[in-house]
Amino acid sequence: MATITEIRPRYFRVPLETVLSDSMHGTITHFELCTVEVVDADGAAGVGYTVTVGRNGRAVMATLDEIAEIAAGADADRIEGLWHRLWWALHYGGRGGPTVFALAAFDVALWDLKARRAGLPLWRLLGGFDPRVPCYAGGVDLDFTTEALIAQTDANLDRGFRAIKMKVGRPRLSEDVARVAAMRAHLGEDFPLMVDANMKWTADVAIRAARALAPHNLVWLEEPTVPDDFAGHARVVREGGIPVASGENLRTLGDFRGLIEAGGVSYPEPDVTTCGGVTAFMKIAHLAEAFHLPVTSHGAHDVTVHLLAAVRNRSFLEVHGFGLDRFIADPLTIEEGLAIAPERPGHGVAFDWAALQALPG
Amino acid sequence: MATITEIRPRYFRVPLETVLSDSMHGTITHFELCTVEVVDADGAAGVGYTVTVGRNGRAVMATLDEIAEIAAGADADRIEGLWHRLWWALHYGGRGGPTVFALAAFDVALWDLKARRAGLPLWRLLGGFDPRVPCYAGGVDLDFTTEALIAQTDANLDRGFRAIKMKVGRPRLSEDVARVAAMRAHLGEDFPLMVDANMKWTADVAIRAARALAPHNLVWLEEPTVPDDFAGHARVVREGGIPVASGENLRTLGDFRGLIEAGGVSYPEPDVTTCGGVTAFMKIAHLAEAFHLPVTSHGAHDVTVHLLAAVRNRSFLEVHGFGLDRFIADPLTIEEGLAIAPERPGHGVAFDWAALQALPG
Ligand SMILES: [Mg+2]
Ligand SMILES: [Mg+2]
Repeated sequence: MATITEIRPRYFRVPLETVLSDSMHGTITHFELCTVEVVDADGAAGVGYTVTVGRNGRAVMATLDEIAEIAAGADADRIEGLWHRLWWALHYGGRGGPTVFALAAFDVALWDLKARRAGLPLWRLLGGFDPRVPCYAGGVDLDFTTEALIAQTDANLDRGFRAIKMKVGRPRLSEDVARVAAMRAHLGEDFPLMVDANMKWTADVAIRAARALAPHNLVWLEEPTVPDDFAGHARVVREGGIPVASGENLRTLGDFRGLIEAGGVSYPEPDVTTCGGVTAFMKIAHLAEAFHLPVTSHGAHDVTVHLLAAVRNRSFLEVHGFGLDRFIADPLTIEEGLAIAPERPGHGVAFDWAALQALPG
Repeated sequence: MATITEIRPRYFRVPLETVLSDSMHGTITHFELCTVEVVDADGAAGVGYTVTVGRNGRAVMATLDEIAEIAAGADADRIEGLWHRLWWALHYGGRGGPTVFALAAFDVALWDLKARRAGLPLWRLLGGFDPRVPCYAGGVDLDFTTEALIAQTDANLDRGFRAIKMKVGRPRLSEDVARVAAMRAHLGEDFPLMVDANMKWTADVAIRAARALAPHNLVWLEEPTVPDDFAGHARVVREGGIPVASGENLRTLGDFRGLIEAGGVSYPEPDVTTCGGVTAFMKIAHLAEAFHLPVTSHGAHDVTVHLLAAVRNRSFLEVHGFGLDRFIADPLTIEEGLAIAPERPGHGVAFDWAALQALPG
């Protein structure tokens, strides 16, 4: 039995190296990093984290304090029961929002701990399908000039990326089309290119946009409309002519079931740090398999590479643009478009606590 | 222009006079009360609040601090724009959970302020249909003996109630049936009696329970299953033989639209303190009207009486059993089964701050 003896949450506010923007979150200058370490009676440890776009982090921390209270003394190996105990203890004020972020961070720590105790990398513990996972660079670049967009793209090609995502949702559709056309011309006919509208449009406007963008041969259109418009998503899938990715703003397995069952998504896209952790992510990946859908991901590529390496129906891993890699000992390796899940025990993410603590408050 | 000059959140942990219980939240000994006062440049003030079942309150407070930061200096009269600005500023880590509770509390304060500035009670400001609102006593009494249940019922009849709700979801269905039968025998054939399962059952089990309880002539069966199983709710409505109330665990207008559109609810039951405030509650009430449904309510009866007094499609107001009335200057008046919306400006809830502050931490 791996009795939990310590749960240590920490909060950091991390400046972005470049100011980023998308169609609905506006300008993003910082992100919040909420980490949680879990230690058991044998001295084994695991670490988990979640990330915000600059708000809600203090509410996540308040919830992590409650989780620490509830989970103290529990058996860290029995994650499934603990997860549901926390879910229901926090349900009335939970089932979404900061509560699920906190649960996700804690769950990632528990899985890290379990894998480290077992001496296995997380991807082998969870299924061990293939450690080489196709990936793409996720740009947060709506307000970049076309020149800056191309420069960022060239840098990504140099880093080994062989697939790229860019933002759409500019004030005029013609601007989106021109930017996508410039990227397509730069990248060549078959290079995998995705676009992300970050919920900007209504379903009808999204269909119009999808049809205007379709000649540029896109892998997917991401978040064409608000997350809870499942029927709208389904119309974009059927009428827009581009496969649809969605899920970074869904917070429960039930949300994913609803969107998938409605026919509203071609590439379900859970974020392990916002969907409830490894426990929930794996259920979503398997749910997608049951519906004959590939699963992609949002954010936290260093942890998520293990989850997509574990399952057969994995699609592209998003390599996220927030630059958390600066604070991690061995960042993700990318080789010719493939992210390589490491062989270190656990997820293998070791934070540079000193560098994080040195950040200005 | 009613420029916001001060936003003051406060946190209280309030012991219940009687230990309460239901099928999914277990034993409840305390609730958390999160209040927020808003003051404008003219010195006018409004107050709002939200309530938890003992967890998540600190996360609500963290979010209220962020709301205070974002809303400082805004025009308190322009609630619709401010609500959406907050919604999107907090969306990635929001759209549910503590975020929506905090937004609800703040929104209630804004509406109180607006009504007080206008010199109108909130129910007149919002529509002014009829201040006399049918109400029921909501018991949180799953683990009460039948004798205690009957004693509580007699006390409620003495207080003027002419409709009562009790909990179901005991380990054996036969116990639920026996308790309901005892209540029906005590109350007489036509007395309005509701039951509340607090999400305990799967849809199939709920249908079995509804059919077993149906001979006892119930007004509604509340929350037969988990909130996001819209299709399951719809089956209970169609196959169970008792109208269904649900909504205290829904957090968005979109959630209500989804459940209503699925045919999963006979009595939509928003809680003003958990669905996003007066702004969201009124939209949900009007949505229900568009679907030819009555609207009932959960919790916060002192504020909600105004909202149901404003609209034509109001059904019963829940008079909630947490006993917040102890800390309010002029608690809700109940006469022969009717709750009376007061004529004081605003919602008219004046907290006894001294008594709240005297509570043990
Ligand atoms: Mg995205
Ligand atoms: Mg209820």
